[in-house]
Amino acid sequence: MIQEVSDYFDKHRDDVLGELVEFASIPSISADPAFKPDVERAARWIAERLVRAGVHCVRLMPTAGHPVVYGEWTKAPGAATILVYGHHDVQPADPIEKWASDPFHAEVREGCLYGRGVSDDKGPLLIPINVIQAFLATAGTLPVNVKFLIEGEEESGSPSLEAFLREQSSLLAADFVLSADGAMWRSDEPSLTVASRGLVGLGLTLAGPAKDLHSGRHGGAVANPLNAVAQLVASLHTSDGRVAVDGFYDDVVELTAAERSAVRALPFDEEGYLREVGATVGFGEPGYSLLERLWIRPTLDLNGLWGGYQGSGRKTVIPSEGHAKITCRLVPRQDPHDILEKTVAHLNRHVPRGARLSMTYNDQVCFPYRIADDHIGLKVAEVALQRVYKTPPIKVMIGASLPACDLFRAHLHLDTVFFSFSTADEDYHAPNEFFRIRRLYEGLEAWASYCELLAAATVSASAAAGT
Amino acid sequence: MIQEVSDYFDKHRDDVLGELVEFASIPSISADPAFKPDVERAARWIAERLVRAGVHCVRLMPTAGHPVVYGEWTKAPGAATILVYGHHDVQPADPIEKWASDPFHAEVREGCLYGRGVSDDKGPLLIPINVIQAFLATAGTLPVNVKFLIEGEEESGSPSLEAFLREQSSLLAADFVLSADGAMWRSDEPSLTVASRGLVGLGLTLAGPAKDLHSGRHGGAVANPLNAVAQLVASLHTSDGRVAVDGFYDDVVELTAAERSAVRALPFDEEGYLREVGATVGFGEPGYSLLERLWIRPTLDLNGLWGGYQGSGRKTVIPSEGHAKITCRLVPRQDPHDILEKTVAHLNRHVPRGARLSMTYNDQVCFPYRIADDHIGLKVAEVALQRVYKTPPIKVMIGASLPACDLFRAHLHLDTVFFSFSTADEDYHAPNEFFRIRRLYEGLEAWASYCELLAAATVSASAAAGT
Repeated sequence: MIQEVSDYFDKHRDDVLGELVEFASIPSISADPAFKPDVERAARWIAERLVRAGVHCVRLMPTAGHPVVYGEWTKAPGAATILVYGHHDVQPADPIEKWASDPFHAEVREGCLYGRGVSDDKGPLLIPINVIQAFLATAGTLPVNVKFLIEGEEESGSPSLEAFLREQSSLLAADFVLSADGAMWRSDEPSLTVASRGLVGLGLTLAGPAKDLHSGRHGGAVANPLNAVAQLVASLHTSDGRVAVDGFYDDVVELTAAERSAVRALPFDEEGYLREVGATVGFGEPGYSLLERLWIRPTLDLNGLWGGYQGSGRKTVIPSEGHAKITCRLVPRQDPHDILEKTVAHLNRHVPRGARLSMTYNDQVCFPYRIADDHIGLKVAEVALQRVYKTPPIKVMIGASLPACDLFRAHLHLDTVFFSFSTADEDYHAPNEFFRIRRLYEGLEAWASYCELLAAATVSASAAAGT
Repeated sequence: MIQEVSDYFDKHRDDVLGELVEFASIPSISADPAFKPDVERAARWIAERLVRAGVHCVRLMPTAGHPVVYGEWTKAPGAATILVYGHHDVQPADPIEKWASDPFHAEVREGCLYGRGVSDDKGPLLIPINVIQAFLATAGTLPVNVKFLIEGEEESGSPSLEAFLREQSSLLAADFVLSADGAMWRSDEPSLTVASRGLVGLGLTLAGPAKDLHSGRHGGAVANPLNAVAQLVASLHTSDGRVAVDGFYDDVVELTAAERSAVRALPFDEEGYLREVGATVGFGEPGYSLLERLWIRPTLDLNGLWGGYQGSGRKTVIPSEGHAKITCRLVPRQDPHDILEKTVAHLNRHVPRGARLSMTYNDQVCFPYRIADDHIGLKVAEVALQRVYKTPPIKVMIGASLPACDLFRAHLHLDTVFFSFSTADEDYHAPNEFFRIRRLYEGLEAWASYCELLAAATVSASAAAGT
């Protein structure tokens, strides 16, 4: 990193922390309509911050929900363009009484800043803004082009993002997305997230008799929808834990032996994991380690199952309906639509006699994601992290789904590189959210290196290509 | 029937209907504590009515809940003693707005009396009292000995009956119970209930992880208690509808070919039944007709099944627990305790890997009941009904359980003959309960015949035995 940028960071360390405390004092809770003015306030705050950093064309762009903040600095002709993604909204603070300090009056304790949103995503988001400010204040220019897409609905499921991306695809044109959101898996091991699982789901109802029946007067005469729903959903798995839907695994890309070895070589403490979730044993598809099952194998899970009497004591009822909610987590190259179709076909084929099946589909599907190992944005990230942490980063995957990442792929045709400096243990969806203050400074150093390294790599790639 | 009794009935027809209207005006709802004084009032009302009929030793006997009304007439040495069972409490009237007339101001419409409790059990209960009054007012004596046990908690599950029977077994000594409660299956076919199914149940919980988990971040790592509970309860049946619990059918008494033919010969409209319950097809244990499955075959039914998210939309949760409630309906000679033990053993053997099973037991078990074909009380009932209806009664069974009948067997060692004149279609647990007025008079005739026939049969049986 050029010395001037580094010196600039040293000189402004306290300013960065101070502005995070200020930004985090805005309760920009996107899920609660009562906080709509605060989300708007956070959008204006971050827009002003972009302007102060020297970013151009900064503006609040309306959506059907909360505004997106956009800005750009594109004065580096020939250099790569990164689209920096982050969000200015936060999770609700409930239950407030479990916080050791005011969630919107951030407080430093033992090297950490405690407050709602400090880790997700206000702290990590301030890093690239400060990096750009440092470059522009010292060198007067940036080595790469940068665009900012800072949404205000990430914590409520990004309902307006898809339409926004579709409408603004030209404005948002870039080489790839560099996300300030996301989290490294552990604070003591630098890591890069290279894959996430897809998601598709459905709800089903098995109907039997037209009304609830007395299980004495009618038991044995007609199908009990609860017996039937148990039988139907049990048919979705073999008893040893494989998904029994025909063709479910057809398109799954098996990892190579080398890739599997890499996963197995990771310092993952299975016993510790089981202790943490409070399970006595692991369970899932046979033939794979627990971490492999989480990262590289698809699942089919019941998220809800219900019908009949749930109160205390006994009610001898044969209810008229049984219900289940199902989601599948998918891996490359499973297609959510194809998996939905196969699951529906399986369910239709296995309807127990005497029950009538109906299904509802949630149109929020998400494709599985995997970034190519040789993606330039990923390779640059590896080197930048190595420079800061003096150790090569671990490549991790996540079992969860990243809808934003899927939308960037679908509507902007862009890959996403995750380059956030929050950590998965920072309670960002729980009381006492915190952000490790040292990671704020490590992040500044890493993002500055990233910009320089990307510029250099792009130049050398262009040179190699003879352009 | 002796002419004087018959004449007495003719003379007092309107009195009987009038006193039913009066009795039914007391809202003796045992399930609702707000109506406790009314249940007490109904007890006093029926006690006074017994006294006026000429019954001796009439008294309100306290229980932990509502009082039992007892009375006796035992001046027929050597004659049989019947214990007449009935109840003075009624179901709640909710939903009140669905009644065409005031539930506690009974109204005659088209040959029926509409009001809460008129069919269950106030109308049928007034029949034997009026019969005794007629005998005593005309002949000055009764052909048999009679005791009355009129409880006030039948509509709330008879919670005090067991203790009462245990404590008062000497007082209640008799040859058999003649129940004024129960119902004939249809208004146009006289019938006698000869069997009912037993009942036993349990609740189960399958626990997995210690807390609800995100199905993305954790799906595939540990057992999902909902997948597990579906698998566990589905294992309780074969796919064709048999109960798969080891030994479940071991003690079931198979009906003889003749008995099965009798069931098959009954005028039962399977299509009509399915229309009534709103089912497209029947379903259950293969090899038996629908009516056989209802009457002579045991079942295992889920009455409740639940866990995870039941709201709208999607919540990608792996819940920490799944739950089910199960009851079995039993037939002679299945033992509820034995079936419970076998079911528990099955469940313990089939716990899916990674889940922990716990169970709760409801101690309200009920043995299946069947009265012997040659029971004197039953044979007398057949003749009495034939006299009134000029056609032999049909013998029917009921799929439901009769806890009172089970308690009489267990604590008084008495069989129960059902001799009620209400009908199963009289909406006695619904709005607009009604009682066919003609059945009030048919009942008087039948009970008077019953007393005479029983006295004669007992005398001839004694004579045949040479005593």
